[in-house]
Amino acid sequence: MLPETTTDTSATPRSHWYPEREDITIYGILAALSDPTRLTIVRQLAEHEEQCPFDFLDFSSKQNLTHHFKVLREAGLIMARYEGRNKFIWLRRDLIDDMFPGLLDGLLHAIEQSNP
Amino acid sequence: MLPETTTDTSATPRSHWYPEREDITIYGILAALSDPTRLTIVRQLAEHEEQCPFDFLDFSSKQNLTHHFKVLREAGLIMARYEGRNKFIWLRRDLIDDMFPGLLDGLLHAIEQSNP
Repeated sequence: MLPETTTDTSATPRSHWYPEREDITIYGILAALSDPTRLTIVRQLAEHEEQCPFDFLDFSSKQNLTHHFKVLREAGLIMARYEGRNKFIWLRRDLIDDMFPGLLDGLLHAIEQSNP
Repeated sequence: MLPETTTDTSATPRSHWYPEREDITIYGILAALSDPTRLTIVRQLAEHEEQCPFDFLDFSSKQNLTHHFKVLREAGLIMARYEGRNKFIWLRRDLIDDMFPGLLDGLLHAIEQSNP
């Protein structure tokens, strides 16, 4: 019989494909952000160190969120890590700010001002 | 026999469809800008009061430019006017800056810094 709490050590580390820095383009980033749900995800991630996919279920279904996270991840905007059964997602703010200085700040500020 | 120079007064005014202000969204703008040629057009327009389509033939074919101008126009980013046979295009900087303050500045600055 299994103990009530288990540490999921048997699970193989789940890993995603991430773009190399040279494959991250401003066009890919803008395309990824040109969707209301994904822009909402990025706005919310920008206000937190990291979040669980669960935190976004108000905005979209689990299936749609999985797709949106994939698009954001492949554009170079987010990363994920696993801790046991929990998944944590964060915005790659340092990378994007380094590659495209002022892009995220300008964008997030513009959205905040306009409240679309 | 026609005189060598004619003023094209017989031509009906050519007009395009432009979105209403409430139909211009940040998502549409980001989608329109998520293309290398269109971003190049916008960068160049940002440095001039207005330009002729001819000025962009280094970046793309006439046919492709027509498509790109249409996408930018329908996103609310550019306007065009005709003067005789000449067409002039300009960036709707005032409108975009008013609707999404800092968006274009942040974007153009980020591109300049990153030189993609």
